[in-house]
Amino acid sequence: METYLDNSATTMCYPDVAELVSKIMTQDYGNPSSMHHKGLVAENHVKDAAGKIAATLKADPSEIMFTSGGTESDNLALIGVARANMRAGKHLITTQIEHPAILETMKHLESEGFEVTYLPVDENGLVRLEDLEHALRSDTILVSMMFVNNEIGAVEPVAEAGTLIKRVNPSTLFHVDAVQGYGKFRICPKQMGIDLLSVSGHKIHGPKGIGFLYIRSGVKITPIVYGGGQQKGMRSGTENVPGIAGLACAAEEIYENFDAQHVQMQELKHYFIRTLSEKLDNIRFNGKTDETSAPHIISVSISGIRAEVLLHALEDKEIYVSAGSACASNRPHVSETLKAIHVQNELLDSTIRFSMSVFTTKEQIDYTIETLCAIVPMLRRYSRQ
Amino acid sequence: METYLDNSATTMCYPDVAELVSKIMTQDYGNPSSMHHKGLVAENHVKDAAGKIAATLKADPSEIMFTSGGTESDNLALIGVARANMRAGKHLITTQIEHPAILETMKHLESEGFEVTYLPVDENGLVRLEDLEHALRSDTILVSMMFVNNEIGAVEPVAEAGTLIKRVNPSTLFHVDAVQGYGKFRICPKQMGIDLLSVSGHKIHGPKGIGFLYIRSGVKITPIVYGGGQQKGMRSGTENVPGIAGLACAAEEIYENFDAQHVQMQELKHYFIRTLSEKLDNIRFNGKTDETSAPHIISVSISGIRAEVLLHALEDKEIYVSAGSACASNRPHVSETLKAIHVQNELLDSTIRFSMSVFTTKEQIDYTIETLCAIVPMLRRYSRQ
Repeated sequence: METYLDNSATTMCYPDVAELVSKIMTQDYGNPSSMHHKGLVAENHVKDAAGKIAATLKADPSEIMFTSGGTESDNLALIGVARANMRAGKHLITTQIEHPAILETMKHLESEGFEVTYLPVDENGLVRLEDLEHALRSDTILVSMMFVNNEIGAVEPVAEAGTLIKRVNPSTLFHVDAVQGYGKFRICPKQMGIDLLSVSGHKIHGPKGIGFLYIRSGVKITPIVYGGGQQKGMRSGTENVPGIAGLACAAEEIYENFDAQHVQMQELKHYFIRTLSEKLDNIRFNGKTDETSAPHIISVSISGIRAEVLLHALEDKEIYVSAGSACASNRPHVSETLKAIHVQNELLDSTIRFSMSVFTTKEQIDYTIETLCAIVPMLRRYSRQ
Repeated sequence: METYLDNSATTMCYPDVAELVSKIMTQDYGNPSSMHHKGLVAENHVKDAAGKIAATLKADPSEIMFTSGGTESDNLALIGVARANMRAGKHLITTQIEHPAILETMKHLESEGFEVTYLPVDENGLVRLEDLEHALRSDTILVSMMFVNNEIGAVEPVAEAGTLIKRVNPSTLFHVDAVQGYGKFRICPKQMGIDLLSVSGHKIHGPKGIGFLYIRSGVKITPIVYGGGQQKGMRSGTENVPGIAGLACAAEEIYENFDAQHVQMQELKHYFIRTLSEKLDNIRFNGKTDETSAPHIISVSISGIRAEVLLHALEDKEIYVSAGSACASNRPHVSETLKAIHVQNELLDSTIRFSMSVFTTKEQIDYTIETLCAIVPMLRRYSRQ
């Protein structure tokens, strides 16, 4: 039974999103910058999309800027804010467990002369608010924190952090990387003190190569690409109209049956964890697993087995999972998140991530449990020889 | 008769490209960075695409880097080369008639401390090689020149410039913005002395939101976005697999019947120009119109009529054209290209661009001529009142 449990790496596109993208590519193919009817039709797709997405965030359509995906959104937020606000200060704060799109961009900004504080996390991967409070300085221009950690599903105290930042230093901007959180949680940037928010299309059953950055009205950033002046000059380049419309369609769809789907994933997650705990010994689930954690991500360290070996054994059974974070490309690496939450050294390389989606069924989870129970003891015997 | 003559702004996607994109979105939706079968399938789409595109340029697949489009390709080439080579010099050369994706990026680089020489062009929009030779200095690290001008279809002496640059200063890199040239001309970077070449998908009946940058093996650039390290760390972000495959499919298709289509467009262009010249007085075609010019672009100044008025009058007849360059977004602006070739002031605002594609038919050109002959005299009478 094909069982795709790597939805935090990427998701299957909703069929009606794919259909819409294809239709726009051949029918409404105009350039939004063209002054004639074909251009207008294309421009209206972009406007409609901004409206639909803004509605999911209780934001204004003018606050939505389309990018080529989560990585570009993160880069635009960090570099754009840093360069636009450097006169106010050169101190930035983030966490040790961010996605490389944040960590590597922060490293680049250090090379441009910015100073970055990397907050540690507790054993569940959660930032401590007192650490954030101590790190905030009068020259801190930006705090960047992920909504949901991509490796263990920790849900960061984003709303509390937003309130704290605005109390301590109202001019400090707050960016949230919501690539794993959008579609899984209801997010209201204005209530949560969030000034910028990154989202990727392909994590919510939308197209690849498209994403958006929410930028609160009034926040100043500089662009990172220059050209024809599209999107108010902040993101030049002909708009990816089919991708934009597809992204908005996916955003609408994922929030349409939000509550039922959230409960369904949460129940499957608890069922998976409970059953596996009963059936397999010497396994450890990383991070919190209760309803305060992300409903779709399960990180489990299985002692005595190399993650890559287990991954390929599962693959043979058409179960697709991830060892660490697939977004970090093919490079073998030790997970920064697992190190930060002090997973034992011998388990670092034995950790598998299962990530579900709205399409995951109870049958698939049962099949996965059954397969693990057959494979894991065998692999353990094998690895001991 | 619907007649889309704004193909230099954007093109209709080939139906089989749209079909392929849609299929990959729902079936081969894996993340190329995932280590399992679904990831491998996705990775193979990317590899195949690089191979197909490289074949059209007689290049190596490793020299193709996928971007979100022409604008990002241009930005990555210019900023990437400038920052990676600033120790060798801080002088850059380009032309006065480049696309804003080049001109605005050059302006940004000036703000980073680089010095830029903007070469003038002759009355046909062509760079003079002696001007280029005089501008080259020992600290010139990059020359950037467009293959085909987007407003008047001038074909720049790229191969001659490449030879000249390599003779005068072999270490100077040569970037070509081929957004309007790729698919319309056979381009062989290695024979032409081209080190970097920008291409956009949606100008060749491929998807929007995708493009590539050819980077000759051995050329050093720095990235402009940071993250998971995809594409050898030069362009982080999950690869837009459907877009990449769609781009390669379009590239293959446009070069498949290349010769016949090139001749067909050239004949339609000459027919259009000849017939219109006979039927309407006080019109002027900008730039060369012979076979040394681009086969798909016709720029005509029609005295006594504002371009925008004519554009909307044609739109009423389902003929879609552009006033100036639609890529430069909705902003009203005076064309830098038309100024550079010294179009009379009173004609600057009376210039229309017709741009054809492989789908343009003789019937559509006849219909356009007929419509112009009916509309232009009427609008001229009206504008005199």
